[in-house]
Amino acid sequence: MERHFDEELKELKDRLLYMSGLTEAMITDSVKALVERREDIIEEIYKKEEEVNLLQIEIDDRAIKMIALHQPAAVDLRFLITAIKINSELERMGDMAINICQATRELLKQPLLKPLIDIPRMAEIARKMVKDSLDAFVKQDAVLAKSVCERDDEVDDLKDQVFRELLTYMMSDPNAIQRAMDLILISRHLERIADHSTNIGEEVIFLVQGKDIRHHIAEQK
Amino acid sequence: MERHFDEELKELKDRLLYMSGLTEAMITDSVKALVERREDIIEEIYKKEEEVNLLQIEIDDRAIKMIALHQPAAVDLRFLITAIKINSELERMGDMAINICQATRELLKQPLLKPLIDIPRMAEIARKMVKDSLDAFVKQDAVLAKSVCERDDEVDDLKDQVFRELLTYMMSDPNAIQRAMDLILISRHLERIADHSTNIGEEVIFLVQGKDIRHHIAEQK
Repeated sequence: MERHFDEELKELKDRLLYMSGLTEAMITDSVKALVERREDIIEEIYKKEEEVNLLQIEIDDRAIKMIALHQPAAVDLRFLITAIKINSELERMGDMAINICQATRELLKQPLLKPLIDIPRMAEIARKMVKDSLDAFVKQDAVLAKSVCERDDEVDDLKDQVFRELLTYMMSDPNAIQRAMDLILISRHLERIADHSTNIGEEVIFLVQGKDIRHHIAEQK
Repeated sequence: MERHFDEELKELKDRLLYMSGLTEAMITDSVKALVERREDIIEEIYKKEEEVNLLQIEIDDRAIKMIALHQPAAVDLRFLITAIKINSELERMGDMAINICQATRELLKQPLLKPLIDIPRMAEIARKMVKDSLDAFVKQDAVLAKSVCERDDEVDDLKDQVFRELLTYMMSDPNAIQRAMDLILISRHLERIADHSTNIGEEVIFLVQGKDIRHHIAEQK
């Protein structure tokens, strides 16, 4: 018996939320490995990335099959296309967490350059942005999606602050340059994670408002 | 009269190729502004980005409407979904070209740090990867798509080379640090453009091979 569209849609949302949870854990743990100098937890992050990569294929496949099988109406079709886009964004956030792990491995070979304050803050804001962008999607909550987009500036400001501070370390000590560069790159990976969440937030706003616009046009006819 | 699906598909491909052409020009010109110290051409690149952003909305809209209206079979559906994904990749490459322009503007305020050899090479390889990835898509040419993916390593190697060289400048002269950082970031933006092309290449391989697999399964039945 062919299953109901709504049931499949619920499953799709659940899988995306599960993937998002993995991605959030990857972000948190990659920065934890850096801050607490815990190389031992990095392997686990790589395992999560493999799972995220498999989920990306699975979720794409689910969404495309739903479109092919059910030929959904415009609103549901846009929702599924947005799910496919979000799926890509999440997979790329996973890549960023792996980039952080790679830089962390380099940094752990040398003594700590400075206590890390802003980078963990960036990581926490970025992680929350991921979570909220996915919640905004499944609830179709444009207000929450907008708040995700607004937090992007906060992360950008922190990235600039990290950059300026580390530049002074580089200027005063050539031995600090390599480590400072690695930290700057980590802050940029976190910024890109925030960017990906912002992309999701924008897609959700478009999804919800697109509906409103269509509704508006329909009313005028 | 409702137009034929194939006609709309041809238009969609043409629009994607046009968008790709704009993106390629943005990449070339952003690095030209840097190398030839031509701030005067930057404004034109920003105008192209606006056009690219509008094209992204237009192309998404075309593809989604085609799916909703024609309810295409699995093969055509996957092609349209891939078009939507490629559309996002191109738009992000445009963003990268804008990032290059921003760093270039900073760099043009100061004297040239060093003659630039590797960055223009990276730009030319990345630009060609964009072109070939789009050609691979419209022709569904998995061999060309694979060659795009293979060139990604070349760009990565150049990025590492740029990094190592500029690190020596930073180590020997604190006054070089800011400029060296900007050049390193530009090389990373070019690397990301190559990554986006590689994403397109991978999508095309999946699109074409997915077909082959389905064909194979169909034969076995």
